[in-house]
Amino acid sequence: MQSASIQKLIALFSKFPTIGPKTAARFIYYLIGLKKEEVDEIIGSISYLKKNVKLCSFCFNPFEGESELCKICSNPVRDKSLLCIIEKESDLNSIEKTAKYKGLYFILGGTVPALRKADMDKLRTKELEMRVKNHQEIKEIILAFNSTAGGEATILYLERLLKPFGKKITRLGRGLPVGGELEYADEETLSSALEGRK
Amino acid sequence: MQSASIQKLIALFSKFPTIGPKTAARFIYYLIGLKKEEVDEIIGSISYLKKNVKLCSFCFNPFEGESELCKICSNPVRDKSLLCIIEKESDLNSIEKTAKYKGLYFILGGTVPALRKADMDKLRTKELEMRVKNHQEIKEIILAFNSTAGGEATILYLERLLKPFGKKITRLGRGLPVGGELEYADEETLSSALEGRK
Amino acid sequence: MQSASIQKLIALFSKFPTIGPKTAARFIYYLIGLKKEEVDEIIGSISYLKKNVKLCSFCFNPFEGESELCKICSNPVRDKSLLCIIEKESDLNSIEKTAKYKGLYFILGGTVPALRKADMDKLRTKELEMRVKNHQEIKEIILAFNSTAGGEATILYLERLLKPFGKKITRLGRGLPVGGELEYADEETLSSALEGRK
Amino acid sequence: MQSASIQKLIALFSKFPTIGPKTAARFIYYLIGLKKEEVDEIIGSISYLKKNVKLCSFCFNPFEGESELCKICSNPVRDKSLLCIIEKESDLNSIEKTAKYKGLYFILGGTVPALRKADMDKLRTKELEMRVKNHQEIKEIILAFNSTAGGEATILYLERLLKPFGKKITRLGRGLPVGGELEYADEETLSSALEGRK
Repeated sequence: MQSASIQKLIALFSKFPTIGPKTAARFIYYLIGLKKEEVDEIIGSISYLKKNVKLCSFCFNPFEGESELCKICSNPVRDKSLLCIIEKESDLNSIEKTAKYKGLYFILGGTVPALRKADMDKLRTKELEMRVKNHQEIKEIILAFNSTAGGEATILYLERLLKPFGKKITRLGRGLPVGGELEYADEETLSSALEGRK
Repeated sequence: MQSASIQKLIALFSKFPTIGPKTAARFIYYLIGLKKEEVDEIIGSISYLKKNVKLCSFCFNPFEGESELCKICSNPVRDKSLLCIIEKESDLNSIEKTAKYKGLYFILGGTVPALRKADMDKLRTKELEMRVKNHQEIKEIILAFNSTAGGEATILYLERLLKPFGKKITRLGRGLPVGGELEYADEETLSSALEGRK
Repeated sequence: MQSASIQKLIALFSKFPTIGPKTAARFIYYLIGLKKEEVDEIIGSISYLKKNVKLCSFCFNPFEGESELCKICSNPVRDKSLLCIIEKESDLNSIEKTAKYKGLYFILGGTVPALRKADMDKLRTKELEMRVKNHQEIKEIILAFNSTAGGEATILYLERLLKPFGKKITRLGRGLPVGGELEYADEETLSSALEGRK
Repeated sequence: MQSASIQKLIALFSKFPTIGPKTAARFIYYLIGLKKEEVDEIIGSISYLKKNVKLCSFCFNPFEGESELCKICSNPVRDKSLLCIIEKESDLNSIEKTAKYKGLYFILGGTVPALRKADMDKLRTKELEMRVKNHQEIKEIILAFNSTAGGEATILYLERLLKPFGKKITRLGRGLPVGGELEYADEETLSSALEGRK
């Protein structure tokens, strides 16, 4: 019923994160409804992004610029004794928004999935070891991962991996989140909230 | 924190249907992570779509081809005495999937929003009147709109607009949907289900 | 941690429809917090209900009164040629609220569960057959069940059971419910809505 | 349509926590369907509860027994230097389930609602002040309230109220809950998780 070119583009959009075929179809109708200049602007922006945005040679955060290092890594004010390991780019943005962290980052590129060797190889663990080895100024490594099964597995894995370097290794504090209620909190969260009282 | 080109593309993707800034950011990281060839394929497909897909001169459904009419409108087997008016392209696909309708379509391009003249002008009501006027073979006009406030308002509006043409005008039957329960059905739905019993 | 009498009452309340142990516990704390007179009123009302409410000898709807028949079954204005079979009491209330149905009811007491003989025996199928046999004035039997798997199975079962009586047997009409959208309607619902257009 | 005694009981059940008229009606039909002995058991249990369960004279937790104090308050092993103030009974149960807290409790009976004097009077603030005054063994008061607006207001209120007694006053630690993700954590939760890292 739908032409081949529409179906192909639905397939391509369906690979975008969180997008299924129905939303992909709505993207197509949206694009068809746009003026030519508007579509050209989207295409041009994607091209420009792909040409000009590169990954920071220290933390792997994408950025645009001449230098090797992103704005955070090249900022002389940031505290180079703190290294915060995170799963993905958006986690860096989440932490930056708190304005409470002044150290550096390292984007691991994923989490440790249970028992899958192939996926493990995609993580930047080699690069992480090199960073820690070559930067003696690092005093504390913060493993800032989700409190999910995948995040926990990654924390355990990295603790073992980084132990030989003799740095202080910490993880995010657990407790009641904003809006959290005792009645619906699981026992582990509530235990942590009690232990971490202040 | 994010470079200008990333922020611009986030803004462009945020205009896509159902997409907010967070998902738009994930699109960017997804694109940055793709190989150059993969991004080129997406860009190429969007370009091709915009160049080669046009709107059917009868029903306004987008299609790819040399002819003026889409596959449905140019299909000699379809019943030209039935015209189904719908809000948008995906509604056409939904009805085609039932394989129960063999007539033609007309995509109105939206619904009647309460009291907003400017939006009303975007609807293809002029074109609709011309279709009905110039195609005496049309015997029944089906107003296949959502059972929402917007859909209902559009049905009322079109009934008045099309009345002078003296065609039979129908709307979709109401009743319990698949999976529907009496206990949670509103009174109007249940009334319709009772009246429409068979 | 909780005393035996509290735990027992939590267990009893947990058997109430839709109630789990957490809400049952909240019931207990609610009752403990009430004045003695308020608790006595609840207890008294339950006792009174159990003593004075009986099931209608025709339709099995619970009611309070001297007669054998409930208000609906003893109402001379109701149309005795229509019999609406329903799963449970609340379905009767839902249909009465529409004010569109003027016939009689019969509460089956459940639906046909797939392949479980023991549960089948709890349905009032014997009583239903007797009602249809002894009331020649019944012209149409409406099987007003949910559009769920259980409801559908019950409709098929009752159609076979009641066929020998030679009455007109109908079911609720299907279609888009109020608020329903074409895009999210399943194919069967949309097919029914198209077929039932008017 | 429904008899007066049914409607009265629906009204009484509708006052139970979390229960609306629809579920209340289902309770009625459930009770009508029970055997007489089963209903008598429910009534008997409610009567017994009301007669035999009393509130602990120290913490206000309901319990059954001869003594003045509940099992927790009369347990010689519990740490009497710790007093945990909570909103309601179920919060006590939640904390006990963690098996991490060995001190005593005090059930305040609610939270501080914004600006409503009448509701404030229902809180056991007078009793709380007496407990703290008369029990010099208390060293730390833990304000274990939800991280909601109501909980926060109560914490601020109690901090001011209890300040004159010169005890250490703490609150639950904030952070990522089990299952929490950085991407969906609010800035305050994430800030707390970073500060509380260990």
